[in-house]
Amino acid sequence: MAKTARTPRTTVKRLPEKARTDVATLHAVLDAGLVAHVGVTDHGQPIVIPVGYARDRDALLIHGSSASRMFKLLDSGSPTCVTVTLFDGLVLARSLFESSMNYRCAMVFGTATRLDGQAELDALKVVTGHLMPGRWEDARTPTPKELKATMTMSLPLDEYSVKISEGPPEDLDEDLESVAGKAIWAGHIPVFEQLGVPIPDQFVPLGTPVPDYMKTWQR
Amino acid sequence: MAKTARTPRTTVKRLPEKARTDVATLHAVLDAGLVAHVGVTDHGQPIVIPVGYARDRDALLIHGSSASRMFKLLDSGSPTCVTVTLFDGLVLARSLFESSMNYRCAMVFGTATRLDGQAELDALKVVTGHLMPGRWEDARTPTPKELKATMTMSLPLDEYSVKISEGPPEDLDEDLESVAGKAIWAGHIPVFEQLGVPIPDQFVPLGTPVPDYMKTWQR
Repeated sequence: MAKTARTPRTTVKRLPEKARTDVATLHAVLDAGLVAHVGVTDHGQPIVIPVGYARDRDALLIHGSSASRMFKLLDSGSPTCVTVTLFDGLVLARSLFESSMNYRCAMVFGTATRLDGQAELDALKVVTGHLMPGRWEDARTPTPKELKATMTMSLPLDEYSVKISEGPPEDLDEDLESVAGKAIWAGHIPVFEQLGVPIPDQFVPLGTPVPDYMKTWQR
Repeated sequence: MAKTARTPRTTVKRLPEKARTDVATLHAVLDAGLVAHVGVTDHGQPIVIPVGYARDRDALLIHGSSASRMFKLLDSGSPTCVTVTLFDGLVLARSLFESSMNYRCAMVFGTATRLDGQAELDALKVVTGHLMPGRWEDARTPTPKELKATMTMSLPLDEYSVKISEGPPEDLDEDLESVAGKAIWAGHIPVFEQLGVPIPDQFVPLGTPVPDYMKTWQR
């Protein structure tokens, strides 16, 4: 399959003005998120499960338990859709019909491939580097037994669609006039994801400083 | 089907200690979220799309465009999985294997039913009341034409699973000892979703106050 965003199933039909097809935007959305929703179909029943992920060049990396039903299905070649959504705000139009949300959303379609050996270790390092930069060098790395219990998969960024909704509402002209003499407040409310103060567990010796690399994690 | 969380596909096998089966916890998770990821299967290909939603008693309400492929599939009786994930934090264990995320996640399985007429209007009011409380009474309500362009569906909360991960990491005993004399900082970092300052659009007269009902929306 050609490296293109334009296939029948990735051509955005609803609100096509919100669609982006450039790979730089795809990368930017994927790089901004931490949690992806992975969809697989099990005997006709869709299953949607959140997982931590990272992008590595032209692939999306996910990992989970080797014993999980979803990862077993992925490993058996089940087609998947991995969706990353960043919820950016509420959009308050004058009409409820035009009221909505601001978001960045990337959907990637395809079949994932299991990574083993050094490729798996490299991929896990990339995932950790995305979710918890600096942590790989500080925490204890996986043992062979732990690697066996982990399934790490790579999904090529070949077939995707990206949709971005941003900024103020788009009201109908007639709604921009006061409705029955009443002017309605309209606009948008940004939503942010914010990291709180790190909470050490009970085994961290009193006075142990928060590692420097964690100070850059603010989203 | 009996109203129960315990069916083969909803019995949590991975990390069963994180599973909750009580309906009160399901309701609490659904009531805390704004965005759900809806999964459907289209000719064997899973599709996962984010939508705004609300809970209405024992049902989950979603709405979207009547012209959308996903809503057409739902309307044709395609089985669905609707997943609501609240990302609550990063969990930094001493081992990377035990490092993970804190989250609340509810998955609802079933088949959605389209709502029409007064039932649709009532459902849209509930959805607005959840996403933007107070707005229904202020903004312009949908016209018949807008209702026709909207598909509103109800998914019964009959078959579901809920998983919650919270608090500090759970390290292995051997990792609680310093590794090669080096004590690793470990703990968790809460993540919050925060609303920013409401931004009026260019058509709101200068000095128009933000409506009182919006002041309670802080998450």
